[in-house]
Amino acid sequence: MIDELAPLLDAAAIVTDRDMIAPWERDWRRRFHGHAPALLAPRSTDQVVAIVRAAARHRVPLVAQGGNSSMVGGATPPVDGSALLLSLRRMNAIRTLDAEAGRVVAEAGVILQTMNDAALVAGWRFPLTLGARGTATIGGLVSTNAGGTQVLRFGTMRGLVLGVEAVMADGSVHDGLPALAKDNRGYNLDQLLIGAEGTLGIVTAATLKLVPAIAARGVAWAGVADPTAALALLRRFQRAGDTVESFEILPADTLAAALAHVPDSRAPIAGHHPWHLLIEATAASAGQEAPAALLERVLAAAIADGLVADATIAASEAQATAFWTLRDSLSDAERARGPAVQHDIAVPVSAMPRFMVDAAAACDARFPGTHASGFGHLGDGNIHFHVRAPAGVDRDRWYAEDAPDITRFVHDLVTDAGGTISAEHGIGQMKAAELARLAPPGRLAALTAIKAALDPLGILNPGKLLAPNSSAA
Amino acid sequence: MIDELAPLLDAAAIVTDRDMIAPWERDWRRRFHGHAPALLAPRSTDQVVAIVRAAARHRVPLVAQGGNSSMVGGATPPVDGSALLLSLRRMNAIRTLDAEAGRVVAEAGVILQTMNDAALVAGWRFPLTLGARGTATIGGLVSTNAGGTQVLRFGTMRGLVLGVEAVMADGSVHDGLPALAKDNRGYNLDQLLIGAEGTLGIVTAATLKLVPAIAARGVAWAGVADPTAALALLRRFQRAGDTVESFEILPADTLAAALAHVPDSRAPIAGHHPWHLLIEATAASAGQEAPAALLERVLAAAIADGLVADATIAASEAQATAFWTLRDSLSDAERARGPAVQHDIAVPVSAMPRFMVDAAAACDARFPGTHASGFGHLGDGNIHFHVRAPAGVDRDRWYAEDAPDITRFVHDLVTDAGGTISAEHGIGQMKAAELARLAPPGRLAALTAIKAALDPLGILNPGKLLAPNSSAA
Repeated sequence: MIDELAPLLDAAAIVTDRDMIAPWERDWRRRFHGHAPALLAPRSTDQVVAIVRAAARHRVPLVAQGGNSSMVGGATPPVDGSALLLSLRRMNAIRTLDAEAGRVVAEAGVILQTMNDAALVAGWRFPLTLGARGTATIGGLVSTNAGGTQVLRFGTMRGLVLGVEAVMADGSVHDGLPALAKDNRGYNLDQLLIGAEGTLGIVTAATLKLVPAIAARGVAWAGVADPTAALALLRRFQRAGDTVESFEILPADTLAAALAHVPDSRAPIAGHHPWHLLIEATAASAGQEAPAALLERVLAAAIADGLVADATIAASEAQATAFWTLRDSLSDAERARGPAVQHDIAVPVSAMPRFMVDAAAACDARFPGTHASGFGHLGDGNIHFHVRAPAGVDRDRWYAEDAPDITRFVHDLVTDAGGTISAEHGIGQMKAAELARLAPPGRLAALTAIKAALDPLGILNPGKLLAPNSSAA
Repeated sequence: MIDELAPLLDAAAIVTDRDMIAPWERDWRRRFHGHAPALLAPRSTDQVVAIVRAAARHRVPLVAQGGNSSMVGGATPPVDGSALLLSLRRMNAIRTLDAEAGRVVAEAGVILQTMNDAALVAGWRFPLTLGARGTATIGGLVSTNAGGTQVLRFGTMRGLVLGVEAVMADGSVHDGLPALAKDNRGYNLDQLLIGAEGTLGIVTAATLKLVPAIAARGVAWAGVADPTAALALLRRFQRAGDTVESFEILPADTLAAALAHVPDSRAPIAGHHPWHLLIEATAASAGQEAPAALLERVLAAAIADGLVADATIAASEAQATAFWTLRDSLSDAERARGPAVQHDIAVPVSAMPRFMVDAAAACDARFPGTHASGFGHLGDGNIHFHVRAPAGVDRDRWYAEDAPDITRFVHDLVTDAGGTISAEHGIGQMKAAELARLAPPGRLAALTAIKAALDPLGILNPGKLLAPNSSAA
């Protein structure tokens, strides 16, 4: 297959040097290790077509890979060396950026930070960002329907992707890049490819929506009695205007961990509050109310009504940054306290206040000595549900024996609450067995049938999303 | 099959009286006539499950139907009487309306106007409306990914549907009603069912997004030299804030027809302008700039820059309504001028100004004596492309012989421009052959494979969307 492809690709497109392949055979957290005899790095959609056609002829599976920042082993090849890595990183052109319309056509290998910067330079904003922005690529973000901290206002990638170009398993090119605002010509393949984790087609480019650049932002910190009060406050903001883009919640205990973890940090508001909120609003134009004024107006009324105990609005960019530094340190701060398992879960937003309290209590009761807590995107119904090991536990034994039980317990709670075991990160290989265990049989059958229909030879990212035996469902 | 279902359904759920079935065997424009030996009208999702299971056992196809207001024969049964009608009209409950969160769970049979009214009563707004709002149902709107006049700001149904409940061909129930803001558990079946025209599952309910009610609106009329100037003006509005929700364009000739057609109407602005624009902006809260102020600010600058020749802002609700009455009469006014074929087409927004001019000229040149013109949703890249027959032509002969040639010619132009032959109305049976003719083979193969995967027995709305022989592609 490699010999066949050699004349069709440039020299740099075929990598067989073990040292050069090795970093891409494991995920960045080093939890999954695979093996690939070669890594293919095409420079164009036509080259991807040639590769997919050859793969189909030779029945050699392809594992599409962008920045390799999957949290679920979604881009790591199988261990048996049966598949080739297909890196999209060299397809990194921004093909067009329409500064009039506010839309951009970016190839799969464009790095998120590059996309963010390019939008800003053009006077626009690509309103999606996340921790891995320096490595994550557009293709990976599309294929995992990535989220981030601005989902509340702008949605996940699904809300920002206007169209997708992809090479399907039969070698045909799906061209959704014209990205029509209205188009009712049958099933929406663009939407099907978003979040498909490279199992239905190889995403080679996407048309993305830009939004007006931020003219001003306001950042507030508030203390409330419980998540129910927090949600009531969020609803007030949403009725007051569609400008709140982050609404993050954390318990007092987690804030304490962050304050201990971040040097020279101080609590944004005085006194003890069981729950804390970080709220950011932005304005794009002079015609809109200043974000700080909106925050002040709504928070003042909420304090007067007893919904909020105390609140402060960042008086400077430095203070706003300090608030966000606390928020961004939560995962590290929690990890620094000892062994723990995290869960990327969501439930319906309206069910989240109760879930946060009840699920933590149920988890603590079921696993004595552990401590469960949730923090994160209340406005999205999406929290990082964190369960800390009992003090003094043997780390390796706990991870190997207790953690899986805890995870299944948490997943059961989430499923019973109508929620999801994967809010942001996808299924990959890490959660395929849990998906097979918890998804309704009809849904599993539908996913399996769609996979078989669009990739009948099983050459696209095998072993991801659908567990090998899930077709038996 | 009927005997088997009788004990499972209530008496009113099985209709075999010819007179009662007849109105539902033809579409409302009386272009398509079919035959169904019975009409089934379940009252619950469980009853739909029973019906679908029986249909699968007996290999009897089902044609789902809501308000029967399809523009493409999408809900008309086959002529051979091989299928049963499945009316969702009795499933017309609004199951829940969360006035805090601004979301509603509505059954398939809820009429759009009822939904609009219920939202308003709760202090919210369901921002989708169209001519058939008194008969069109939520299930049909979901299944055809309906549009309307506010797509520019809020998108089509796809942007308003947060989740779908549907009975799949195997009798399993897809429950997307929890409508999680973030959920990455594999292929998005909700998105796949939206716009699937009842061919992949029977939509029984949907969770819909509401938006804040309108606090104020502003309506303007402007005259411009050409569609290019119109688009430049739209871009200025979009940069100024996300509050313009209608941006409609019409040529002077079409305005003249409307003025002749609507009693006691007068031109909104004086003088001759080749192209006219109707623009509406709204504000939901006191914190936003008044819509009329925004319109005035942007239009005054555009006039100063020579982009707009003249403009006026409606000084009263009565005047605003008068502007809209002109717009809403365009289809009738054009039809009153004689035989014509209309086309529901879209191209990329940025390509629309040129397309409107070039396509009309090409059509006039190719079919001497006809007159082509486009009007409609410039902001969506979606116009009604109207081709009027030559004066004095024999009506029946022209519709039978010339109109199909014109339609194929227009569809070729649209396809060459990267556009769609169905912007709003879907494919149904009317456009299935054209879809098969114009869609890329890879796309047709993918659609056909998905259909076969999810409805292997072919019991869901056969003969719609995919022409019977398109599987040969």
